Amino acid sequence: MKNSFGTSLSVTIFGESHGDYIGITIDGIAPGVEISDSYIREKLALRRPAGRISTARVEADEFSIISGAKDGYTTGSPLTVLIPNTNKKSGDYSDIFDTPRPSHADYPAECKYHGYQDKRGGGHFSGRITAALVAAGAIISYALLKKGIRLATHISYLHGVKDRKFENLYDDISYLNSIHFPTLSVESGDEMRRVIEAAGKDGDSVGGILESAAIGIPAGVGEPWFDTVEGVISHALFSVPGIKGVEFGEGFRLSDMYGSEANDHYRMEDGRVVTETNNMGGIGGGITNGMPLIIRCAVKPTPSIYKEQRTVRLSTMENETIAIEGRHDPAIIHRARAVVDAAISIALADMLVQRYGTDYLR
Amino acid sequence: MKNSFGTSLSVTIFGESHGDYIGITIDGIAPGVEISDSYIREKLALRRPAGRISTARVEADEFSIISGAKDGYTTGSPLTVLIPNTNKKSGDYSDIFDTPRPSHADYPAECKYHGYQDKRGGGHFSGRITAALVAAGAIISYALLKKGIRLATHISYLHGVKDRKFENLYDDISYLNSIHFPTLSVESGDEMRRVIEAAGKDGDSVGGILESAAIGIPAGVGEPWFDTVEGVISHALFSVPGIKGVEFGEGFRLSDMYGSEANDHYRMEDGRVVTETNNMGGIGGGITNGMPLIIRCAVKPTPSIYKEQRTVRLSTMENETIAIEGRHDPAIIHRARAVVDAAISIALADMLVQRYGTDYLR
Amino acid sequence: MKNSFGTSLSVTIFGESHGDYIGITIDGIAPGVEISDSYIREKLALRRPAGRISTARVEADEFSIISGAKDGYTTGSPLTVLIPNTNKKSGDYSDIFDTPRPSHADYPAECKYHGYQDKRGGGHFSGRITAALVAAGAIISYALLKKGIRLATHISYLHGVKDRKFENLYDDISYLNSIHFPTLSVESGDEMRRVIEAAGKDGDSVGGILESAAIGIPAGVGEPWFDTVEGVISHALFSVPGIKGVEFGEGFRLSDMYGSEANDHYRMEDGRVVTETNNMGGIGGGITNGMPLIIRCAVKPTPSIYKEQRTVRLSTMENETIAIEGRHDPAIIHRARAVVDAAISIALADMLVQRYGTDYLR
Amino acid sequence: MKNSFGTSLSVTIFGESHGDYIGITIDGIAPGVEISDSYIREKLALRRPAGRISTARVEADEFSIISGAKDGYTTGSPLTVLIPNTNKKSGDYSDIFDTPRPSHADYPAECKYHGYQDKRGGGHFSGRITAALVAAGAIISYALLKKGIRLATHISYLHGVKDRKFENLYDDISYLNSIHFPTLSVESGDEMRRVIEAAGKDGDSVGGILESAAIGIPAGVGEPWFDTVEGVISHALFSVPGIKGVEFGEGFRLSDMYGSEANDHYRMEDGRVVTETNNMGGIGGGITNGMPLIIRCAVKPTPSIYKEQRTVRLSTMENETIAIEGRHDPAIIHRARAVVDAAISIALADMLVQRYGTDYLR
Repeated sequence: MKNSFGTSLSVTIFGESHGDYIGITIDGIAPGVEISDSYIREKLALRRPAGRISTARVEADEFSIISGAKDGYTTGSPLTVLIPNTNKKSGDYSDIFDTPRPSHADYPAECKYHGYQDKRGGGHFSGRITAALVAAGAIISYALLKKGIRLATHISYLHGVKDRKFENLYDDISYLNSIHFPTLSVESGDEMRRVIEAAGKDGDSVGGILESAAIGIPAGVGEPWFDTVEGVISHALFSVPGIKGVEFGEGFRLSDMYGSEANDHYRMEDGRVVTETNNMGGIGGGITNGMPLIIRCAVKPTPSIYKEQRTVRLSTMENETIAIEGRHDPAIIHRARAVVDAAISIALADMLVQRYGTDYLR
Repeated sequence: MKNSFGTSLSVTIFGESHGDYIGITIDGIAPGVEISDSYIREKLALRRPAGRISTARVEADEFSIISGAKDGYTTGSPLTVLIPNTNKKSGDYSDIFDTPRPSHADYPAECKYHGYQDKRGGGHFSGRITAALVAAGAIISYALLKKGIRLATHISYLHGVKDRKFENLYDDISYLNSIHFPTLSVESGDEMRRVIEAAGKDGDSVGGILESAAIGIPAGVGEPWFDTVEGVISHALFSVPGIKGVEFGEGFRLSDMYGSEANDHYRMEDGRVVTETNNMGGIGGGITNGMPLIIRCAVKPTPSIYKEQRTVRLSTMENETIAIEGRHDPAIIHRARAVVDAAISIALADMLVQRYGTDYLR
Repeated sequence: MKNSFGTSLSVTIFGESHGDYIGITIDGIAPGVEISDSYIREKLALRRPAGRISTARVEADEFSIISGAKDGYTTGSPLTVLIPNTNKKSGDYSDIFDTPRPSHADYPAECKYHGYQDKRGGGHFSGRITAALVAAGAIISYALLKKGIRLATHISYLHGVKDRKFENLYDDISYLNSIHFPTLSVESGDEMRRVIEAAGKDGDSVGGILESAAIGIPAGVGEPWFDTVEGVISHALFSVPGIKGVEFGEGFRLSDMYGSEANDHYRMEDGRVVTETNNMGGIGGGITNGMPLIIRCAVKPTPSIYKEQRTVRLSTMENETIAIEGRHDPAIIHRARAVVDAAISIALADMLVQRYGTDYLR
Repeated sequence: MKNSFGTSLSVTIFGESHGDYIGITIDGIAPGVEISDSYIREKLALRRPAGRISTARVEADEFSIISGAKDGYTTGSPLTVLIPNTNKKSGDYSDIFDTPRPSHADYPAECKYHGYQDKRGGGHFSGRITAALVAAGAIISYALLKKGIRLATHISYLHGVKDRKFENLYDDISYLNSIHFPTLSVESGDEMRRVIEAAGKDGDSVGGILESAAIGIPAGVGEPWFDTVEGVISHALFSVPGIKGVEFGEGFRLSDMYGSEANDHYRMEDGRVVTETNNMGGIGGGITNGMPLIIRCAVKPTPSIYKEQRTVRLSTMENETIAIEGRHDPAIIHRARAVVDAAISIALADMLVQRYGTDYLR
């Protein structure tokens, strides 16, 4: 299946930016999983644009669960969340129909859908759709939380500015989940915001690097080939718009290390086997080893910028220039973190349910 | 399915390092695809250890195709390749049963398989298994070649040493596929080999970065959500042992760029729409745009090193030190390139067959 | 995935009888497929209860397509159909919470969902959900029609009454699709209706046998093992509530035939290879042979009857008797035919798209 | 995936009648499952032709497990069974290359594989391949046995001759698994053998009906839509060559019953909820109810008969007659029972592992 993910616990996403609704169906979630509307609302709020560094399009994200839930608990049947699109301005996008925007999905979509795609507001490719993903992720991550699995994401790097590294994971995760611009260091956060604002003023945009940590995952989950933990999680993560790289543990930095530096030595700690370092990000041979998962994602700069850009006019096959108007974000990385959390939650839950059975999340 | 990959064209891998055979089944390949034994042998040779920088265990990799082929062509039925394990020395590994080797799969496997896993020579986790993946990849990449799709991989970085970038892709791809230590610059290759040898002499190991390019892929392949080109390819790539990061186009470097630098502008060239740069690596919105695919993988240093390392004795739950004996590689990156080519070929073929139907590869 | 079906073209179903909406998502349908609202409405009408032989609950089945369609054509993105539940009377079902109704899903659902299932009106098990399946099937069968593939279903047998066999398939299919109580012989239809009415008056119910024919399917579709045409179609059909048997061609009657009677001999006809008989129902070795598909389904009597029945009280684990009140059908077979058509259409389309690629249905 | 089955526990089948090996890979089986070679050999023996009523081709079915097992237990890695083809006589089949045999896969295969299929001895379509399925089924059913799940199959009907019905299921299952021609009544078995011999002498063949029972399956397994127990099991069963119909419980006979006769009333028995009758075959709403599964399969007469038959010559597109020579069975139903048991075991195990997790079968 194409726009679906997962085998034992799966999601199917649908909707377009300027349709009446976007939505998502979760299939395979256990019956009796508590649903916290306020928790979902919190997660949606973390994704929502806010303040000077975000788009002027603000959606209320009033979701409704139209199937699979009753009296605050999942029923075990497919659970569908609908989110209405209330703030649509199709007029903004009239320019892009014939002149594909650089590094947007416009041109690849044209090649795939032969002109039938809904082009308004990015259609099915719109970052708007990620609200549905965040809602599904929130339902699932709330269930994971009850099983002692916690995760959060911070902006570890943004155009020259570094955040501090994770230290006490439990506290860092709690802290990150309570703030809207997710950095562990307040100063780094302020500095990053300044960089984003400056780019925005210049009609430009920036990307960055998101770093996620997940704790409480049992050892022994994942498969040696193909359905490795890295393979399954990265598969989900590359659906988050703008992500162009995924690494685990020290990732690309391992190319500068000797084996004697990179290897995570084992030792006993409080009667449990732990590793002294966690350069592998909690995964060995494709399988969890009980250490925290550490995942980093490269987020490209938002492709919508105000500067003039070169493109082609598809109807005449001639070169052309465009300036993209309408509302757009100089950065989406602080919002993408909510989507990254959702994607990781979904992927983790699928692997856990496959390992331990349908009722694992109850 | 767990140790399988692909929906329309799929592979299932099996075997252990010290079993009689390793093997792989390809299901969904068109009938009438020519099979070139010499091409498969060539690809297997690129994966095989050779010279001072590789393990002393050398396998002949005599493969046989026991189903799905007749008179040099695929029949359209599941095609199974078997490769016998001829050079097994189980005695070498006796030490590791109770004291898991740092950053090997030993401990995660113990948690997953409760002691029933075949531990000899890494069992199902052994890099040995990748010979089967390379054989399957060779059958598929030969079919892709006939459709005008070519790919190759070089070591773009190894512990401080950089290879030159891709220039003329067609020529670079041909060149790389003809040499055993894949660098575009001979000097960089020599230097990398010196680094590997030095690490080996020191009982240590190194990793590096592999960069792959694929040309000739039609625009319009892939899905907007979940089955994005990046998601599907990375899912396959993280099965290549040692890979801890995957990026597309400029990947993590996009975190240092402005949108105005990162965006790939369009222009007409010879009547075709092309992009002036290829920072997105040939993919937009999860879908191919007709430009070359550019993929980079981080390979960790081989975990098997001769230096003493700290671990635990599982039977007594006490701290312990080990020194790993036996044969092992100070680097596997030059061999991993063949496995990376295979994984990319399999993932690409699956997406192409899904898009264009079963007979696409005929 | 559990409540989903199909690999290349797939559907995911959701909703409960007494929720606000039921719905279905079609993923993998080509862009540019024409959507005929009136055709969908027609198919929904065939499923809708009507007259004395059906339940008193009548739904308008006002559907809306909330994603994946624009200006009367599919966009190629996941297409979601929502149907509101307007005529809900939850009070009717209060009795069944603790005393499972014989041959209903109540007790198995209790074992699976531990009491969290939505029990009102059958919840996710309700025949009501099939309206969504019919809507999806209609979108797909309209696309199949444009490719020359036609199908229809009649009641071939109902409690002692036989319909005539298929004769001229093209005409018979057209005729069946134009009538609400699908029999080829008017007299048989009248007689069947009398049997149903009589059963209804007696507080009882009847089932029957549905026979479907599909013409225009190319030869060479399906797989030899597991994804046989029979396997894929039966997998879909057993989702139609009440179906307890599926056979192809002469099916169970083959147990009374010699090979010399059963074998379908080949001959040339108008330059095409055809078979003289069609005892195999258009399928050999799991693969279509170009002859019409012939499929028969056994439909059990509706389990909701007014007569007193024996059951258990789950809370006290004591024997109990119940009489089911509320609205229910003495027969659903004439309505099930629309669901059967939908299930077959979905299964066929999936196999065709897998064989010929995404754009096949355009 | 095409020639694969299952999501959590899956099998992939490969091989051709006249290749060196046929084989099957089981993926997702728990580690630590005991493997009994003698039990596998027993099951293979039940499938093997024997005596006057079977083909003269007899294979030793010497299997070897080349991966996924060690010291008599599964390792948890993909388990591959190879069975060599030792008794091949390709000369026997030379006549069929251009003149497809009626009701064989020859012609559909030609349409699908464009002439590239391995035609010798039926190739990938050969009943020979079922030996691999039986081996996989035996490994799985031995594990089910340890969980208290037992199943067996008898010939309930063969060309006018009926076997007695199941009575004491536990005893009947044990008895059937101990005999080669599986009927519950010795007299019925003798009579059926006479019918088969008579058909064979006449150069003809017969089919029949197989009835299977499975006990010990927990209630609450299966899904309401699509992955219903009926859907999943029938999907697997239609891979057994010659099967053209599958029904559960009273199946097609339900079309002659009133709801008041068909409904299975509940009652308490030894503190457990049971049904008084089992017309639904242990399944309600697609989900197991804890009662025995009852499944019936229609097996068509073997298509290979010695009588002259009409066909076409594909090279000239002219009508033709053929007489099939070589070795073939006047009936395969007594051998097919072993394949049916295997298919049901595989389907059941997949649903159980999906429900209860990977380690369920340990």
